This record gives sequence, structure tokens and C-alpha cells, in this order.
Amino acid sequence: MATKQTIEEGSEFIPKFDTNGLITAIAQDAKTGQILMAGYMNRAALDLTIQTGYATYFSRARQKLWKKGEESGHVQKVEQILVDCDQDCVVLKVTVEAGQCHTGYQSCFYRALKAGTAKELDFIAEKVYDPRKIYKK
Amino acid sequence: MATKQTIEEGSEFIPKFDTNGLITAIAQDAKTGQILMAGYMNRAALDLTIQTGYATYFSRARQKLWKKGEESGHVQKVEQILVDCDQDCVVLKVTVEAGQCHTGYQSCFYRALKAGTAKELDFIAEKVYDPRKIYKK
Repeated sequence: MATKQTIEEGSEFIPKFDTNGLITAIAQDAKTGQILMAGYMNRAALDLTIQTGYATYFSRARQKLWKKGEESGHVQKVEQILVDCDQDCVVLKVTVEAGQCHTGYQSCFYRALKAGTAKELDFIAEKVYDPRKIYKK
Repeated sequence: MATKQTIEEGSEFIPKFDTNGLITAIAQDAKTGQILMAGYMNRAALDLTIQTGYATYFSRARQKLWKKGEESGHVQKVEQILVDCDQDCVVLKVTVEAGQCHTGYQSCFYRALKAGTAKELDFIAEKVYDPRKIYKK
């Protein structure tokens, strides 16, 4: 059993999967620092990501492995994988060549809470591609 | 019931909490773009964050609200709250004046998987404060 000391101060990668077998994975543009998306990985997705150098997630909605870009071609080339103190979250530093959100935006985080409100969002980005031309269904 | 269209393309903030009543919250340094930590918020934590302008999370380990910095003083001043396409994750753009990880590092992500390995971590940062001087227990 890994100790708190080992997990937090050690140099062994011991990713902690939750009760559903998942770990949170955040994709961050390695060049710009922009956070592109947040997803989940199971053990197989994490292993595939490490082995192939391209991000593979686990889709909770579809309950299956999902190589990012398998349909759209908008893949994420993984430059570095960071892990946090308690090893229950990873950050993927990625290089991308196209918009990463299925809605057409570069990042999934294209809206921000309007200042002084609790319910209203401002759009803070423009679409960078037309998803209707990429996703046929 | 909010539709996919409303959630993804609308300007109403409709955060989606999971079966445990939590949403993932990522704190990112507003100046440098560095990802500082990932945590969780319940409805009360999110409301407090919006109302006070300082990040409050929900501690899963302690099952209670946790104002970031309540013990260490290392608070997060929230400049902007971004939400992703399906509204199940928020990014807090924060201003910080001190190391954010309880281990002494600026960011919780102070280790990276060593290139070409699957289990070995490199330390990629230096501690910016001594946690033994901050946390008394």
C-alpha cells in the first residue's frame, strides 16, 4: 500500500483511479497554456496514451475508449504528462493542429460567467472550424 | 430539462453536478497560465466562490466546504470562471500570492512522467515555501 509520503513526495507514478476506475485528465496546449478540455481515463486509456503518444480518453457517456480525434482527426499529440500531489489527476501538455471541441471551438472552455452575475455566460471565443463539415451524424 | 443545444450553445450557466453533487474545478494562474490544482465543488462551494470572489472547494476527504487558504493563507482570488461545453467542469482563472500546494510547491503538478517510461516521475519544480512552517499539524 502506497503511503501519503510515497504518493506525494515519491518518484513512482501511482495513478489513483476512483471507484469507477477513472482518473481526471486535463489537456493543456503545450504552446499557449490554454486549457483545451477535461476528460477521464481508465487504466487502459492512460496506458494507450503513454504507449502511443496520443491522448486516449474513456468516454463515460459511451462507456468505451475514445482516441481523441478518431472521428474528427483533431488529435492531441502528448508532449508531457504531469501528475498532481495525490496522483488523482493528470495534466497532458499537448500539441494540437485543429480546434479541440466538438462544437467548433479551439477549447471546450469558450464561455465565462459574466462578471457580477451567477447565471449568465459570455462567449469568449470564436469557432475555428465548422463541426457540421467534420461530424457527419 | 435543459437540452444539449441549450447546454452547449446557450448563455445560461447550468452547471452539471455528478451523482455525488460535485463538479470538477481547475484553478489556473491567470497571469502565467500554469495549472495550479484540480478540485471539486458542490453547489454551495460554487455559490460561495461566485459570491465572495475567492475559491471555495468541497473536500471529498473531509466531506466539508473548504475555502482554499483557510489554514495556510494561500488563497485564490478568482478573476474569471470558465465552463466547458457540457458544463460539467469549470476553470477558475485565479490570482495567487503564494504557493498553492500543501506540499510546498507553487502548483500541485510538480512532477512529470519521465519520457520513455510508464512509472517513473521527474520533479519539475522547486518548493516555494516550507509547509512545516505553515501547517502546524
